[in-house]
Amino acid sequence: MSDKGSPARDEPRVTLVQVAKLAGVSPTTVSHVLSGKRWVAEATQETVRNVIRELGYRPNNVARSLRTRRSRMVAVVVPDITNTFYAVLTRGLADAVDGAGYGTYVCNTDGNPEREDAFLADVLDRGVDGVVMAAGPAGNQVRTGPPAPGVPTVCVGGSPEDAPRVDRVTPDDTVGSHAAVTHLIARGARRIAMIEGPLPSGSAREDGYRQALAEHGIPLEPDLLARGDWTRPGGRSAMHRLMAAERRPDAVFCANDLTAIGAIDAVHELRLTVPGDVAIVGFDDVDAATIVNPPLTTVRNPAYDIGRTAGELLLSRMDGRYDGTGRTVVLPCPLVVRESA
Amino acid sequence: MSDKGSPARDEPRVTLVQVAKLAGVSPTTVSHVLSGKRWVAEATQETVRNVIRELGYRPNNVARSLRTRRSRMVAVVVPDITNTFYAVLTRGLADAVDGAGYGTYVCNTDGNPEREDAFLADVLDRGVDGVVMAAGPAGNQVRTGPPAPGVPTVCVGGSPEDAPRVDRVTPDDTVGSHAAVTHLIARGARRIAMIEGPLPSGSAREDGYRQALAEHGIPLEPDLLARGDWTRPGGRSAMHRLMAAERRPDAVFCANDLTAIGAIDAVHELRLTVPGDVAIVGFDDVDAATIVNPPLTTVRNPAYDIGRTAGELLLSRMDGRYDGTGRTVVLPCPLVVRESA
Repeated sequence: MSDKGSPARDEPRVTLVQVAKLAGVSPTTVSHVLSGKRWVAEATQETVRNVIRELGYRPNNVARSLRTRRSRMVAVVVPDITNTFYAVLTRGLADAVDGAGYGTYVCNTDGNPEREDAFLADVLDRGVDGVVMAAGPAGNQVRTGPPAPGVPTVCVGGSPEDAPRVDRVTPDDTVGSHAAVTHLIARGARRIAMIEGPLPSGSAREDGYRQALAEHGIPLEPDLLARGDWTRPGGRSAMHRLMAAERRPDAVFCANDLTAIGAIDAVHELRLTVPGDVAIVGFDDVDAATIVNPPLTTVRNPAYDIGRTAGELLLSRMDGRYDGTGRTVVLPCPLVVRESA
Repeated sequence: MSDKGSPARDEPRVTLVQVAKLAGVSPTTVSHVLSGKRWVAEATQETVRNVIRELGYRPNNVARSLRTRRSRMVAVVVPDITNTFYAVLTRGLADAVDGAGYGTYVCNTDGNPEREDAFLADVLDRGVDGVVMAAGPAGNQVRTGPPAPGVPTVCVGGSPEDAPRVDRVTPDDTVGSHAAVTHLIARGARRIAMIEGPLPSGSAREDGYRQALAEHGIPLEPDLLARGDWTRPGGRSAMHRLMAAERRPDAVFCANDLTAIGAIDAVHELRLTVPGDVAIVGFDDVDAATIVNPPLTTVRNPAYDIGRTAGELLLSRMDGRYDGTGRTVVLPCPLVVRESA
C-alpha cells in the first residue's frame, strides 16, 4: 500500500527519441507509427509498439490537445446504456467517428435533468469535440443553442425550431405509428387502445395513432388511452386496466416493445390469446420482439442509423466542412409484421 | 459551408476572470463551481453556469491534464456494446468511477485482436487513467503486464498468473455451470448435452459441466458436446444437430442464454416440448430469459457487479491507495430456476 500514488507517475518521462533509439528507427518513424497518418512497414510498427510498451512511453497527446484545443472525444448523453436502444445508437455513433480518430465517451443521466446538466458542464470542462444528446425528453433542455457554444451538438428527437445551430436526427415516429395503427384497422380492429409513455400526451407516436383513427372515421375514445412507463411491468398493469373496462379493446398499440411484451403478459394472465382476442403492436423492434410468444408485430426504430447519422453530422462540423444552421435528418421507421397483429 | 473550421475555435479565449466579472462573483467562486469540490449556493452556481454558457468559456482542463498527466477518463474495451452483458458491465463501471470524476470511454473491438491493439495504442496516446479489458478471449492478450505500464488495468476473466500487476474480476463460471448441470441431474436427466462457444474446449463453463457429470458417475459422451457461437441461430443449428443423433439428449446446458433461446426454437420446430422432452438451461440471465417461452432456467452472470468491482479496483490504484500485485475478485453466479428445466 502507498499513499503517494503510483510510482509510474513519478518516473522520469521517457522521450520519443529514446523510443526511436531502442527501436532502431528515426524519431519521425515513431511519430508516424503513433499518428497512423503515414505508411510504415508492419514489422517496424510492431517493433516500435513493443518498445513503447516496454519503456512505458506516453506520447504527449495532452500537449497536442492544448495546442489544438481538441480532445478527440465525442460525448453521447443517454438515459441508460443498458437500454438496448441506446447501446445500439452508441455503437452507430462510435462506428461513424472511430475512423476519424474520435473516441466515444458515454454519459448515463437516468433521465435526471440535474445529472444531464452536470454532464454538460463536465463535457465543457474536458474540451470534448462534439456532443450527441440522446437523453430523451430531458434532451429538450437544449433549447437556445448548443450546450457549450462552439461545440458541435446533435440532438436525437426534439423539434428543429428549438435551437438553430444544433443538428437533429429523429426517427419518423408519427409515420411509423400511423402505419402500425392502419395495419390494426386493416385487420378489422375498431376499438384500438394505446398504451403511452409516462409523459403528458402529445407525443409524435400518439399523433400517428390519432391520425390513423381520424382517417378511418374511428372516433378517439379517451378511456382507450392508457399510461405506461416504457417498462414491461408498466405495460402489464396498463393492459390489465384496459381489459377491466366494460368494453374491452380489440387491439392495442404500445409506445414501445417492452410495454407491448407486458401487455401480452396481461392477456395471457387473463387466459385470452394474442392476436385472437386482442391484437398487439409495439414500437422499437428490440431483439426481444422475436423472442416473445407470439413474435411481436412492431415498428422498427433505426437506433444504429440514428447514431451513425448523428456521428456524420458531428464530423462535418468538427472538421469544418459545415458550419451553417441546424440540419434535421428524419429516418424512416418501417412496420415489421410478425404474429401478434 | 466553410473549409476553415468552426469560427468558435478561432475566437479569442474567454478567461475565468471575465466569467467571474460578468457573474458578479470572485474567480475563486467560479473555480469552485467548476471543480464541485467546495460548497457554492445553488443560485450562484446557476448564475455562473449561465455566464459560462453565454460566453462560451472552456476551462483549461487540458492544461491541467498536462500538469497532472491525467485525462480523468477510464477506457472500457468490450467486444460490442450492443451485447447487453457488456452494456450492463459498462454501466456498473461508469457508476463506480463517476463519483470520483472519471468519464467512461467505450471501445468496441468485435473480438478483433487488431482493433484491440489499436485501441490500446490509442488509450496510451490519450493518457487515459485506467483501462478495463472486457473483450473476452482477446482480453487474454494482456499477458505480461498492463498494456501501458503505469496505467492501472483490470481484466474481466482470464487467469491471474498471466500478468502480475493487472487486477482481475471474474464471474465464478465453473461453480455456476456445476450448479446448472447438478440441477439437471437432480431433475432426472442422464443424457446431458452441452452447447459451447466457438472456441476450443476447456472453458470454465465446460469444466463445471464435466465436474458435475463426474461427481454423479455419468460418463461424458463426446458426441453430446456441440459447438455454438454465442448466438441464437448458432444455438438453433447446434440443437438440431444434437436432436438428429440416434440417441437424443434429455437435457442441454447452453453456454449462454442466446444459445439456449435458439435451442428452444429448435425443440419447438421439432414439435417437442421444453422441458417435457428436453430440459434446457442457459447462462447469463439476460432480460430475454424471462421473455422466452418457457421462461429460461439459467445462471446469473453478475455483469453490473463485475463492472462496478472493476471500477473500484481501478480507483484504488488511480488514487494511489493500492499499488501492489494483481488482485483477483471472484463473483458468484447463482442458479435461477424458472420453467425450462
